[in-house]
Amino acid sequence: MLIRTHAYAAIGPGSPLQPFELDRRRPGSHDVLIDILFCGVCHSDIHQARDEWGGAVFPMVPGHEIIGRVASIGDEVRRWTVGDTVGVGVFVDSCRECEACVAGEEQYCERGMSPTYNGYARDGTTPNHGGYSERIVVDESYVLSMPPGITLDAAAPLLCAGITTYSPIRHFGVRAGEQAAVVGLGGLGHMAVKFLEALGTQVTVLSHSPAKREDAIRLGADDFVVTSEADWLASCDGRFDFIIDTVSATHDYNSYLRALRRDGTMVLVGLPGPSPLEAGPLVNGRRRLAGSMIGGIRETQEMLDFCAEHQIASDIEVIPIQQINDAYERTLRSDVRYRFVIDIESLRGPDRRVAGPVADTAAAR
Amino acid sequence: MLIRTHAYAAIGPGSPLQPFELDRRRPGSHDVLIDILFCGVCHSDIHQARDEWGGAVFPMVPGHEIIGRVASIGDEVRRWTVGDTVGVGVFVDSCRECEACVAGEEQYCERGMSPTYNGYARDGTTPNHGGYSERIVVDESYVLSMPPGITLDAAAPLLCAGITTYSPIRHFGVRAGEQAAVVGLGGLGHMAVKFLEALGTQVTVLSHSPAKREDAIRLGADDFVVTSEADWLASCDGRFDFIIDTVSATHDYNSYLRALRRDGTMVLVGLPGPSPLEAGPLVNGRRRLAGSMIGGIRETQEMLDFCAEHQIASDIEVIPIQQINDAYERTLRSDVRYRFVIDIESLRGPDRRVAGPVADTAAAR
Repeated sequence: MLIRTHAYAAIGPGSPLQPFELDRRRPGSHDVLIDILFCGVCHSDIHQARDEWGGAVFPMVPGHEIIGRVASIGDEVRRWTVGDTVGVGVFVDSCRECEACVAGEEQYCERGMSPTYNGYARDGTTPNHGGYSERIVVDESYVLSMPPGITLDAAAPLLCAGITTYSPIRHFGVRAGEQAAVVGLGGLGHMAVKFLEALGTQVTVLSHSPAKREDAIRLGADDFVVTSEADWLASCDGRFDFIIDTVSATHDYNSYLRALRRDGTMVLVGLPGPSPLEAGPLVNGRRRLAGSMIGGIRETQEMLDFCAEHQIASDIEVIPIQQINDAYERTLRSDVRYRFVIDIESLRGPDRRVAGPVADTAAAR
Repeated sequence: MLIRTHAYAAIGPGSPLQPFELDRRRPGSHDVLIDILFCGVCHSDIHQARDEWGGAVFPMVPGHEIIGRVASIGDEVRRWTVGDTVGVGVFVDSCRECEACVAGEEQYCERGMSPTYNGYARDGTTPNHGGYSERIVVDESYVLSMPPGITLDAAAPLLCAGITTYSPIRHFGVRAGEQAAVVGLGGLGHMAVKFLEALGTQVTVLSHSPAKREDAIRLGADDFVVTSEADWLASCDGRFDFIIDTVSATHDYNSYLRALRRDGTMVLVGLPGPSPLEAGPLVNGRRRLAGSMIGGIRETQEMLDFCAEHQIASDIEVIPIQQINDAYERTLRSDVRYRFVIDIESLRGPDRRVAGPVADTAAAR
């Protein structure tokens, strides 16, 4: 018995998103059925819906910044109760046996994690579908708890934009009082500013766009440097202990690396195209260029708890799903401060309702 | 009173090295006058003598892998005694005040260290001249002690090739039992193999040249992979905790980065030209690409002591200085295993002798 679910999908590469119906699996003994409340719109949703990274699986229901409520649980689920407010991020399963999984770094699963969408379940053949949908069925171990006091719609982007920036900030040991910089002030960058500010670092935003100065300061930055000005490095040469580079367009790394102090680290969290790297800025100052990809389940929960404690969430614009194609265009023009979040209730209008209440058809027993 | 000193110099960019005379300064109260015994031939000597990095200072007496004996000392020198066997490496002074100098990382001096040659003393105007010469005057704080039991000619390359590879291996915390790889088996690479073997790692040499397999194993490598074979990465994907990349020619980094495990580090110690870097191998596995430049005085001494303890030295071919131009050509063709060392006695033949014994003219008091 499957669970008929309304959704929005890209039918093929680059086709506009459109209403779609899919069948969620009947929850197994360790599964949780989640009624989705909100889903963030990640820049990578657009890349994938347009097959810009290759190998995309269509039809594709994007969405991996999911907030919802537990509607039913499998027989052996002990961790969750019906009614719990929960989150689902970028992946919904992994091998659970490799060194990375055992270390709680499931995002680096050596056999490949199962993405929330645009990929397959562990059987390698069942396509996964994401959060632009009414509900989702996820193994209990890949579900996050939303701590009390967190604003649910603004929390959705934490599941990707949040953990993607939080994880390297913690992993590379950024400490209070250090000089930190954020390259790019978008969905990821604005979260990085908030985390770095909460950790007590001196935060500088490095941005091509002078228009973002006011926002950067409002978000918590101590300084703002316009990197489209030719002499920007004069005030930043050898200055930062840590730089998080959130830009996903292809760009030059060398000048940012020169802005690091001796033994400083710059971390890429986007996936820009190949860019000519000079050895000099690395060798002269023993600097490091690293990469980081989202975060594991344990660290994602830690990040959500940190956000609740520090009253951190994303700056968002809530849209009904019927506006998703326009939201994609605006995201591509950086015309959003800083993340679109879909109110999934918009999928549940009279013309979108499934036959029968969700909990009835979805119950695992 | 200056000290007339025979040497070999490049008179201009790319001119062959030829006999040359220079005046060493009269040793000051903190200086040490060193009669040079041996000087290693570093690949960077060739780059600089040919002004391939720009800004070279001519005439240039190269040489920064210097072994000698203390011939006289300044009034206030307490650290050294006439007759001590000592070494001089890549720099002979630094500001002594910046954070890097205070930390004992003089190679990263924020005001710029004073290189042993092809640069200036702290006054910014007096050109420094290197070890292709009979003697040199160096501040006592920038002189290294050669521990008993070390073979002097084979120790010369430790002052650059040795510390350049030892420092990142220690700084980035390589541990016994880990999987380590060395890219390129030349003057630097062969030292890296010896250090990594002595530290108890599993060492793999990654080389374009199948002909170097036997040598790699003889030097202590556990495995050898020919990277000019198309499928080399099949046996190395995600394998290494640490890679030291000693290649100075421009080359691709991306496939080597893929050979790192999660959280692995690759360190560049050469200065190759710009090369297109992909974000994927860094982001997927949280890998790091770093650089490292020689080492500080304290760590260089530690390295020399480590070499004495573990009976490590360079594999060398000793030449008279009259063969230096041929040695440069052979170095460029990688036709040396693994380092030329000049026997500076060859500068002291009857036609090279200075008037009067060295110690007489050079005494500081």
